[in-house]
Amino acid sequence: MTTTAAIRIPANVPEAMRATYTRNMQRLTHGTGRIMLFAGDQKVEHLNEDFYPFKAGEQIAAEDNDPRHLFNIAQAAGNSIGCFATQYGMVSLYGPDYPEVPYLVKVNSKTHLVNVSQGDPVSTAWVTVEQIVRLREMSGLNVVGVGYTIYLGSEHENVMLAEAGRLVADAHAAGLPVVFWIYPRGKSLLKKEGDKTVNLEKSPKVITGAAGVGATLGADFVKVNPPDAVDGKSSAEWLKVATEAAGLTRVICAGGSSKEGASFLKELQDQLVIGGTAGNATGRNIHQRPLDEAVRFCHAIAALTYGSRDVEYATRVYQGQESFAI
Amino acid sequence: MTTTAAIRIPANVPEAMRATYTRNMQRLTHGTGRIMLFAGDQKVEHLNEDFYPFKAGEQIAAEDNDPRHLFNIAQAAGNSIGCFATQYGMVSLYGPDYPEVPYLVKVNSKTHLVNVSQGDPVSTAWVTVEQIVRLREMSGLNVVGVGYTIYLGSEHENVMLAEAGRLVADAHAAGLPVVFWIYPRGKSLLKKEGDKTVNLEKSPKVITGAAGVGATLGADFVKVNPPDAVDGKSSAEWLKVATEAAGLTRVICAGGSSKEGASFLKELQDQLVIGGTAGNATGRNIHQRPLDEAVRFCHAIAALTYGSRDVEYATRVYQGQESFAI
Amino acid sequence: MTTTAAIRIPANVPEAMRATYTRNMQRLTHGTGRIMLFAGDQKVEHLNEDFYPFKAGEQIAAEDNDPRHLFNIAQAAGNSIGCFATQYGMVSLYGPDYPEVPYLVKVNSKTHLVNVSQGDPVSTAWVTVEQIVRLREMSGLNVVGVGYTIYLGSEHENVMLAEAGRLVADAHAAGLPVVFWIYPRGKSLLKKEGDKTVNLEKSPKVITGAAGVGATLGADFVKVNPPDAVDGKSSAEWLKVATEAAGLTRVICAGGSSKEGASFLKELQDQLVIGGTAGNATGRNIHQRPLDEAVRFCHAIAALTYGSRDVEYATRVYQGQESFAI
Amino acid sequence: MTTTAAIRIPANVPEAMRATYTRNMQRLTHGTGRIMLFAGDQKVEHLNEDFYPFKAGEQIAAEDNDPRHLFNIAQAAGNSIGCFATQYGMVSLYGPDYPEVPYLVKVNSKTHLVNVSQGDPVSTAWVTVEQIVRLREMSGLNVVGVGYTIYLGSEHENVMLAEAGRLVADAHAAGLPVVFWIYPRGKSLLKKEGDKTVNLEKSPKVITGAAGVGATLGADFVKVNPPDAVDGKSSAEWLKVATEAAGLTRVICAGGSSKEGASFLKELQDQLVIGGTAGNATGRNIHQRPLDEAVRFCHAIAALTYGSRDVEYATRVYQGQESFAI
Amino acid sequence: MTTTAAIRIPANVPEAMRATYTRNMQRLTHGTGRIMLFAGDQKVEHLNEDFYPFKAGEQIAAEDNDPRHLFNIAQAAGNSIGCFATQYGMVSLYGPDYPEVPYLVKVNSKTHLVNVSQGDPVSTAWVTVEQIVRLREMSGLNVVGVGYTIYLGSEHENVMLAEAGRLVADAHAAGLPVVFWIYPRGKSLLKKEGDKTVNLEKSPKVITGAAGVGATLGADFVKVNPPDAVDGKSSAEWLKVATEAAGLTRVICAGGSSKEGASFLKELQDQLVIGGTAGNATGRNIHQRPLDEAVRFCHAIAALTYGSRDVEYATRVYQGQESFAI
Repeated sequence: MTTTAAIRIPANVPEAMRATYTRNMQRLTHGTGRIMLFAGDQKVEHLNEDFYPFKAGEQIAAEDNDPRHLFNIAQAAGNSIGCFATQYGMVSLYGPDYPEVPYLVKVNSKTHLVNVSQGDPVSTAWVTVEQIVRLREMSGLNVVGVGYTIYLGSEHENVMLAEAGRLVADAHAAGLPVVFWIYPRGKSLLKKEGDKTVNLEKSPKVITGAAGVGATLGADFVKVNPPDAVDGKSSAEWLKVATEAAGLTRVICAGGSSKEGASFLKELQDQLVIGGTAGNATGRNIHQRPLDEAVRFCHAIAALTYGSRDVEYATRVYQGQESFAI
Repeated sequence: MTTTAAIRIPANVPEAMRATYTRNMQRLTHGTGRIMLFAGDQKVEHLNEDFYPFKAGEQIAAEDNDPRHLFNIAQAAGNSIGCFATQYGMVSLYGPDYPEVPYLVKVNSKTHLVNVSQGDPVSTAWVTVEQIVRLREMSGLNVVGVGYTIYLGSEHENVMLAEAGRLVADAHAAGLPVVFWIYPRGKSLLKKEGDKTVNLEKSPKVITGAAGVGATLGADFVKVNPPDAVDGKSSAEWLKVATEAAGLTRVICAGGSSKEGASFLKELQDQLVIGGTAGNATGRNIHQRPLDEAVRFCHAIAALTYGSRDVEYATRVYQGQESFAI
Repeated sequence: MTTTAAIRIPANVPEAMRATYTRNMQRLTHGTGRIMLFAGDQKVEHLNEDFYPFKAGEQIAAEDNDPRHLFNIAQAAGNSIGCFATQYGMVSLYGPDYPEVPYLVKVNSKTHLVNVSQGDPVSTAWVTVEQIVRLREMSGLNVVGVGYTIYLGSEHENVMLAEAGRLVADAHAAGLPVVFWIYPRGKSLLKKEGDKTVNLEKSPKVITGAAGVGATLGADFVKVNPPDAVDGKSSAEWLKVATEAAGLTRVICAGGSSKEGASFLKELQDQLVIGGTAGNATGRNIHQRPLDEAVRFCHAIAALTYGSRDVEYATRVYQGQESFAI
Repeated sequence: MTTTAAIRIPANVPEAMRATYTRNMQRLTHGTGRIMLFAGDQKVEHLNEDFYPFKAGEQIAAEDNDPRHLFNIAQAAGNSIGCFATQYGMVSLYGPDYPEVPYLVKVNSKTHLVNVSQGDPVSTAWVTVEQIVRLREMSGLNVVGVGYTIYLGSEHENVMLAEAGRLVADAHAAGLPVVFWIYPRGKSLLKKEGDKTVNLEKSPKVITGAAGVGATLGADFVKVNPPDAVDGKSSAEWLKVATEAAGLTRVICAGGSSKEGASFLKELQDQLVIGGTAGNATGRNIHQRPLDEAVRFCHAIAALTYGSRDVEYATRVYQGQESFAI
Repeated sequence: MTTTAAIRIPANVPEAMRATYTRNMQRLTHGTGRIMLFAGDQKVEHLNEDFYPFKAGEQIAAEDNDPRHLFNIAQAAGNSIGCFATQYGMVSLYGPDYPEVPYLVKVNSKTHLVNVSQGDPVSTAWVTVEQIVRLREMSGLNVVGVGYTIYLGSEHENVMLAEAGRLVADAHAAGLPVVFWIYPRGKSLLKKEGDKTVNLEKSPKVITGAAGVGATLGADFVKVNPPDAVDGKSSAEWLKVATEAAGLTRVICAGGSSKEGASFLKELQDQLVIGGTAGNATGRNIHQRPLDEAVRFCHAIAALTYGSRDVEYATRVYQGQESFAI
């Protein structure tokens, strides 16, 4: 089965930008309604901890320390990625060498240094949509969308919701689709139950709520974390609830946390087929691998996401025993 | 008795926007001075907790998980609803499929994750009136008003009052009527009396104050919660005090909290007839029902609100034994 | 003795707005240099507590619950009031029915829910001068000035001083005189002296300081509370010090707190004659009375303020035994 | 010896404003490079405490309660003062009566009600440079510069440094020289040393730092408090270090705290001659005296500052036995 | 070996500003890809503590108290420095006397008075890029870039990241290269480990992260502190990791902390050769020396940085036994 989906144009995309919006959505989804988002914003979000050589006990390709590795993957993976999500500054520095990569500009970012026990998270926009549009126009780079992270439940939630709301209006006005990363986080998600603290960040109710907030913001895509498997339902089954709650806003999800390729792909397939997600946002599971393996992994993910192939097929793609192109 | 009311035009509606303002008020009130506001902003305000399947022990229609359910109701209910209040993003995503629905854009929203014991509430604007007007103009969608929530008594009250004040001026300048949800909330409303804490959020004095603040802001409508029945007066009798205090600003109120249709309608009727309210803002009591039942419930509410019928008639409408149309 | 005073035009009133400024000052003062300000902003400042029916043990006219009562008084009192001070929203809603009332737009307001022990007060602008000017121009309403409240000594003092400073420049640029309500308030005014707390909010030194701040802001009028009678001086004698400290900025004061008409008028007369004030800002002492009585009370106040009559005469005006008109 | 100094024009004064800048600097310095700044902003900074009649045990002229006293002095002192520093509002109210006075608009001000133990100081701009320039243009008043206070070491330091930085750029763009009052203040200046608290606000190191910050901001003048006499150096000797650290930015200083004229003048002379300061900012030591005496005191200060006369001569000027004019 | 590097132009430099950007980069790097940044912003950052005469027990040239000393060095060192980094105000005051010096405007600065135990650091922009560009245009001064400090891990991190992000877009739009000083600082960097506190500000992982953040911001250069020598690697070896992580964004580093010239140069050489850095940012190690020695020291640093000479050669340059010019 190949998922196909006509591209709907939200009402806040002006006439003059409809072709641009459609072209960008087409590049993101290849007409399938699904997206394979290659996430490369971790240099801030996790500082260099996801990269060589700081992850103790984990095997990370040495080349993953150089930001260029991300761009090399994005370029080599071609159509298998819908977009490469990274900060404006990265696009401006490396873009000229990689003019064909479809960029999704991640508008805000924060480090993980201040943790929740010290203070609730807040992350604000580094650049305006106007600055992004100017970059697109002056450089001819293929900027296909923008992204923004919201920490729902933070004491500073309103700062991010307000920026996010304006962002959708401004981005759509420029023909740019929007992806929100919505992560419930903050002291409000840590409930005392007797002696222990229960972390509600990934409870199905809260994850479903996050997906729904994406819809109210008018996002094209919303990325949530996979919900906890509780109350007799698997994570993918709970995702199904969340994807329904998000309606026209397509839910994407982190693939599995497993570094092992086949089990990652299996989890992703469950998310797509059982959970009804519209794709994935995958970062370190791709870029921590050497270039060739990373690219094959992108193709494998694309085989599931864009090609609606099965896990076995995708696994063979990852292992280089099969090729997939879209 | 049918309530009729000429449409007054506030002094801050410019000449060129008077026809627009009048048309919008007419759509909201059908010339009765009353409004039936279908509230569909809960995906943020209550996350997904009002929706299927998270409400433990409550029967919620399965279709209520999909945002489209809200739009389906709004469309099918036709003139029985004065407006469907939801976020800008929802309007931009679903509006093209539901071009006839009268939309009231809810400008700010927050989740309920941070509760008052952790911090006083603050909710700020997601979009500007200018962005809303641009949406109206570029899409031709029927945006008939804007809404905003104020948490009176919050330590951040001034942030919301300042946004609300400017909102009225900007919205009226664009011919858009304004509805405020004014909820007294925050530590200041929780008074220690000896060992126990008294919650003043719904005390008649405070609710009347909230209604009066709506007037000072120049709102067209102000939504308050039904006041506590105390000091020998019923909630509806205290509402009468609040509606007088609001003067030309029409007070609307949540219908009953009861899920049972007939008792809900009875409470609403008391609010209208005894309390002098100008209508209701009803959300989950509508959308938690299946489409047909939800639509009949809208018609039943409309029979009271716009038709000035009695509860028995309205109950029959809800039960499908009678039809009501305006 | 009739006080007369030429109208001085501050240097920040542009040439093109001098006639407007002069006309507004003339309407406020009737050429006497004094002002009778009818304050009607309490629906926010005190919520509905000053209004019927919440004031326990006090007799308040039932009609005082309806905002229209304020406008009815303002209209019926005619020239006896220099202006009716209320929020922008009130003017925009009721103005069309009361086109001859001289309005002073109260730019900021806050509720009294959060008290000083919970947090220092902050009140910020609801509308811009530009929005007020647009209202004046589009409606032709008689907006004769603007007002703003500053809580001196609050930890947020700088927010209000900064808004107030810009307000004077913007308002004078539009020919609008400015009235500041300057109230010292906040934890800094509550000094521990041994076991007890001394409230310095009305100490002569602090009140005189507040009056002086009005001058530094370039206000036309500054309203202060009557200072405490201490150190062998009456409140009115201390007011004399404050009015001297304010220089060209005219000090106005709350009349007496007494609800009893004659004693109120006596206190006011002392403020004018002994204290050298330029009038009064009176709210609940007027609007808590029935319309006729309220209007006669306005005339009585005007007899003192504008007419420089004696207390006996004014009392007879209040009692309907004498008439006063300006 | 008469100090003379050519007027340097900073690089951020545009061509079209060079004549204006030069004329203003000439008015401030009379070509000597030194400035006699008459400070009249205390109505806010100290509320009315510096003025009649609140200073217990001090003899203050009764006329000093009226703001006009400040203007009378400024006018009568003529060229002996380089400028009269006061708030925008004072200039706009009194300026028309005193068109020849050279005004330096003090852009920010705060009261002293909240002390450091309650919270670190913050003072923000009351008006924009654009509003000041408009005042200058519409009124023809002689606005010769702007001033701003920075509380270095406050937790809110960055707010003031950011406003100050932009202020210099904006003011110089309009041909207006800038004076900063830089006062180290806040909990960071109160160091615990064992049982006692050492106040570092006037330590030579910190005062020298404050002077240097004035240079980095590009100020024309920086006012600092006289440093403590410690480590075998007098206050004036430490000032020499500070004036060197400030380079082209000229350091001015409060004259002595003594109310006694001759000793005040002696301290000032030490600051000028030993400390290398470029003048003084004197407020209450002038305006607390009766008009005639205050004016003679201005002439005496000018004799030292502009005339480079000796203390004996200046003292005679103060005593009316000698006259000085520039 | 002479390092040479073509000048890459980031995608956010518009066509019309490419020549300007290239000329500025050429001035900074002399075509080597490396930069010798003479840092002169310490008058704020360290108040006057780095300057004569406050550094107890250290020999600082007396002339170093005068800001002019910095400019004299910058001018005399000629091409040996890539730029002189100082505040806008310093450039505007002294620039006219030193028109050939290449200036890098340091946009934000803070004092060190409030330390981390009192509050997390925040430093915000003093001027806008627009104001800097206006300075460049009106004065013809050689402004070759802008700089900004970010305290990563501060609770106020987002304020600085947001300003920094916009700064790059605005600066590149004006053809101005950007240098970030990224210092991890705040309570989050002080980890309790049992009884003691471990300071992570210079841990290799955190320093590498800081370098990577520079890349995500799109900076041309990022200055980090030398990482701690831990886990069997020297500081320079860890720098190699950081420079790789920064990719196209060139890492610069403080030279050694040693005041002794030869050992300073040895450390710098290790950073360049082993660490792969692209130069250095050196302040007090230069300006605390007398002019001649300071200039020779600049030449010595340039011999390593721009000339790729060896330490022995550079040491001889510093000692005046050899000359170096570029």
